[in-house]
Amino acid sequence: MHNGLKAFLEFKAYRMRYWSVVAPSEAGSGHTTSCLSAADIMSVLFFYAMHYDPKHYNNPDNDRFILSKGHASALLYAAWREVGMLSDSDMLTYRQMGSTLEGHPTLRFPYAEAATGALGIGLSIGAGEALCARTDRRTFRTYVLMGDGETSEGAVWEAVQLAAHYHLDNLIAIIDVNRLGQSDPTMLEDHVQRYVEIFNAFNWRALLVDGHDIEQLMKVFDKAREITQKPIVIIAKTFKGRGINMVEDKEGYHGKAIPKDKLDEALKQLKNNFPHAAAYNRTYDWKPKLPERPPTAITVQRSFTKMADPFYQRDSLVATRKAYGQALAVLGTVCDAVVSLDAEVKNSTYAEIFEEKHSNRFFQCFIAEQNMVGMGVGFDRRNRMPFISTFGAFLTRAHDQIRMAAIGQSRLNLVGSHAGVSIGQDGPSQMALEDIGMMRGIPQSVVLYPSDAVSTYKLVEAMARYEDGITYLRTTRSATPIIYNNNEDFIIGGCKVLQETDHDHVCIIAAGITLFEALKAYKLLKKEKINAAIIDLYSIKPLDESTIKRVVKKANNKVITVEDHYLQGGLGEAVMYALRNTGVTIACLAVHKLPRSGKPEELRAFEEIDTPAIVKKAKEII
Amino acid sequence: MHNGLKAFLEFKAYRMRYWSVVAPSEAGSGHTTSCLSAADIMSVLFFYAMHYDPKHYNNPDNDRFILSKGHASALLYAAWREVGMLSDSDMLTYRQMGSTLEGHPTLRFPYAEAATGALGIGLSIGAGEALCARTDRRTFRTYVLMGDGETSEGAVWEAVQLAAHYHLDNLIAIIDVNRLGQSDPTMLEDHVQRYVEIFNAFNWRALLVDGHDIEQLMKVFDKAREITQKPIVIIAKTFKGRGINMVEDKEGYHGKAIPKDKLDEALKQLKNNFPHAAAYNRTYDWKPKLPERPPTAITVQRSFTKMADPFYQRDSLVATRKAYGQALAVLGTVCDAVVSLDAEVKNSTYAEIFEEKHSNRFFQCFIAEQNMVGMGVGFDRRNRMPFISTFGAFLTRAHDQIRMAAIGQSRLNLVGSHAGVSIGQDGPSQMALEDIGMMRGIPQSVVLYPSDAVSTYKLVEAMARYEDGITYLRTTRSATPIIYNNNEDFIIGGCKVLQETDHDHVCIIAAGITLFEALKAYKLLKKEKINAAIIDLYSIKPLDESTIKRVVKKANNKVITVEDHYLQGGLGEAVMYALRNTGVTIACLAVHKLPRSGKPEELRAFEEIDTPAIVKKAKEII
Repeated sequence: MHNGLKAFLEFKAYRMRYWSVVAPSEAGSGHTTSCLSAADIMSVLFFYAMHYDPKHYNNPDNDRFILSKGHASALLYAAWREVGMLSDSDMLTYRQMGSTLEGHPTLRFPYAEAATGALGIGLSIGAGEALCARTDRRTFRTYVLMGDGETSEGAVWEAVQLAAHYHLDNLIAIIDVNRLGQSDPTMLEDHVQRYVEIFNAFNWRALLVDGHDIEQLMKVFDKAREITQKPIVIIAKTFKGRGINMVEDKEGYHGKAIPKDKLDEALKQLKNNFPHAAAYNRTYDWKPKLPERPPTAITVQRSFTKMADPFYQRDSLVATRKAYGQALAVLGTVCDAVVSLDAEVKNSTYAEIFEEKHSNRFFQCFIAEQNMVGMGVGFDRRNRMPFISTFGAFLTRAHDQIRMAAIGQSRLNLVGSHAGVSIGQDGPSQMALEDIGMMRGIPQSVVLYPSDAVSTYKLVEAMARYEDGITYLRTTRSATPIIYNNNEDFIIGGCKVLQETDHDHVCIIAAGITLFEALKAYKLLKKEKINAAIIDLYSIKPLDESTIKRVVKKANNKVITVEDHYLQGGLGEAVMYALRNTGVTIACLAVHKLPRSGKPEELRAFEEIDTPAIVKKAKEII
Repeated sequence: MHNGLKAFLEFKAYRMRYWSVVAPSEAGSGHTTSCLSAADIMSVLFFYAMHYDPKHYNNPDNDRFILSKGHASALLYAAWREVGMLSDSDMLTYRQMGSTLEGHPTLRFPYAEAATGALGIGLSIGAGEALCARTDRRTFRTYVLMGDGETSEGAVWEAVQLAAHYHLDNLIAIIDVNRLGQSDPTMLEDHVQRYVEIFNAFNWRALLVDGHDIEQLMKVFDKAREITQKPIVIIAKTFKGRGINMVEDKEGYHGKAIPKDKLDEALKQLKNNFPHAAAYNRTYDWKPKLPERPPTAITVQRSFTKMADPFYQRDSLVATRKAYGQALAVLGTVCDAVVSLDAEVKNSTYAEIFEEKHSNRFFQCFIAEQNMVGMGVGFDRRNRMPFISTFGAFLTRAHDQIRMAAIGQSRLNLVGSHAGVSIGQDGPSQMALEDIGMMRGIPQSVVLYPSDAVSTYKLVEAMARYEDGITYLRTTRSATPIIYNNNEDFIIGGCKVLQETDHDHVCIIAAGITLFEALKAYKLLKKEKINAAIIDLYSIKPLDESTIKRVVKKANNKVITVEDHYLQGGLGEAVMYALRNTGVTIACLAVHKLPRSGKPEELRAFEEIDTPAIVKKAKEII
């Protein structure tokens, strides 16, 4: 029986190799050699190690599999083909327009756990799922298959540290040590013991295995499920291109499909190398190890009842970052799905207010923004609603992870505090000045920049209700006056017209901290008989094009935008795009000089985004 | 004598503590406790360990010091105050507008080796300097002082791996293990042995020391200079806030200055804790250990003679990424300063062509983009001219490092290959679609996107001559026809008008791959008696506003931009800004749907950035 299983697993590995050769060859591109090194691992994973119901992918107790080495996509599809969820003809659509079997896995493929292809991001997502499993009291394991080349990515070691810190013994990484990268051998080549030493030093439990020995693989995966208190890594010594002599263990074949005119020869070599598997003609009654639901498992809902209005006092001073923390704590009360991830700045972002109320759903991610975002992707995949906060400037550290999260159709809520030069003395390294541009450039993203606590509070709820992608909330360090009533509504894609007459000379559009500069400018201009319409553009993407157009038209088609952000990709360019082809005269005030340390008001003056600059510009353009 | 030195070093540590308390207290903000833990380390570094000429900071043989824990800026300034290069009144300008003593070090401070403050980036810069020292056959050491909290950043472990790979025994990291982060204790707290194990596993040599014991510190720094073949890390066990009882080893005091009304008490506690140092009244004839120039040291010049024109054949097909490699190889021949860093994709970016000619100046940085950019900063600081290449999409991984490089006034040349959906089958994870926006948002950056090999070749030379910041070159995967003569000139801030008449109906502005779609559209439109002016906007930032305005005006003020990039922050928004207030009618064709795998032409059609889409839009707007 065990022999029968072993032969069956060898057969399945053979079949996966077959598809790893044929599908890319048919497509004319793909990473065949990177698939071949991991085929035995994948066979044992999918047909022996994992407890899952292949027919119900969304069973919340299924073990999870993340292909961090996303270029081996053909192998992932081959596994699901062999499990029976894809047809042969599906396999031949690989990399074709319209196929869900894309060059690197995306969430368009229904059995992909994560969009991968940017290297080094899978372990973070897996760590998020593993931590979510514990939070939800579920016993599923998360398996992450990584390449050896990608261990040079720092994001991997962020995940390694955090997984050890949280003792994630339900996280099982496998490193396919095939020695060869794209253009060169990896740094550690086949010194597998070095990987063992490094992971053990990080308080993981490392297990070494011959990645082409089915029996050894079965044993090591059994052992992996027994280990407690530590995350597990299986260091699998393999050969790139294993099974096809013309490419096996040779440099120069990364990312190359077998040319069609060599396909027959390649498949012949495959047969010769695995004669028993190639000749396999038995029937083996394979049944998946179906998961059991632990009796204590909890299921949370993303839907929630409306949050009560806040109790802010008009004109009192509250920092929007603080209002974020307060709103999140309330949201956490009405919505069990909410979790908060913070990068060791919770007393700056005010995520600590959430932690105080919901400590079991607050996760300290330490100073490791890439992993924090990746973990958020994992939580989202398991139906939690992550709010992820740090300084806005430091979200740039996770730009690639955010980009990939969008490709993975993740619902993430990102919150960046300490926006703009208005943070003052800490200086440029701490100032978010490109975050609006970065986040506008994320597909289907929402970019919000409220000015006061009421609007912040309301927008946190709106973020939680947004279903189509990633939201971003930009918050301000200093306390700003409450300008809205507690029952005011704020919606994604909305704006507020704070001042308007039928005889406006100019429309000033601002958001966040510069709104207060605009309001002061309004008063000064009024004294000089200049009427300014004022728009609070708290939703920068999407933006309320029709209201802006209406007010601007009435304001003699003169517009000034003012933002505490670089010009490029910012509020000004967004407004300019919305107002294209309307014949307006527009001036964009934005940060244009490399900032420095100083008092917030000194810096706004230095960058010409303060009240006097607005007044001056208004007089110029009207 | 040795006793005299020890007392002197204790006195200097005491003085540095004094300034670490007083300067932030005066400024009303700053990270006093993070300075206090490292004061003894800094005293021994600046007055004992380092070989340098304080009066000639730019001596190329000086040992280098990088404060990776940039929030301890007051300590850096204190060290230079005690060395004698700053006055007491300088110290009291800390964090004031106009002062070079900023909240986190920037290059405005003449004795800062790097702009820091985003954590985890210093070690990469140090590794770059250490590798540069070896390349230049110089014997100086690079010291990098890190916080323990920042070791959670993945970028640190990218640098750790690479430094070990290159056996950088001239790189000496010090970790100030003060146990406390901003809001929480660090993951490893004071388990210093764990740091030792981890670094040793990565093939570093870790040395453990009591970070407050001057004699131990002297010994360990002596030992660090004797170690060969491995990078060295000194794990210094310290206490945050050391010396001031009211804050020492206590949570809640990160990033806080001593309030002015507690300053006297704090200084009294300092005196009481270091009575000998406080009462120090001897004179010690300290002399810096001046560096010696090794007889084999080489000095390279950034200036270079004009590159010869290339030999491309009109209409032949050459990928711009390949032309980049070819141009860089030629540049390397005329300019010794050039070095090439690549993230294990040299056969995709074609950095391998440079490597073939100049293998001693090519550095494989493996799949670790953050560290690669950081190393580039280090090379630049030591007067080399780095060209840094990977897929454009993966430069997003290093966004924070690029941002910080700009704050550090670095001259970096970044090259991103595989732009846009036009890479085809590999799918969205590999497509650079936000890189133009990201790079436009970097202060003083240049963004170039040539369409053919000639323009690419010429622009590589222009990048090398750009002195004011970071340049970015976007290259295309597929081969495109040569459309320019080999003697054509291309300048930063220029463009080429490829078609224009006196009776144009519309002006189409494109760059890179879409230029060829525009040229095809030109022909189709011409058949229908529609004249289109065509502009090759190869320089997107800065852009040639006057030429664009001139041609657009003549083209009936109708403009179409077309780009293989998301709308946000891209070429279209840049052109729209340039054409603001001119009354043009503009349409921006850009990638607007989440892309997928497919053939390049299928994807350009899907995103409506191909010839038919341009033709259709032209007919609509004229």
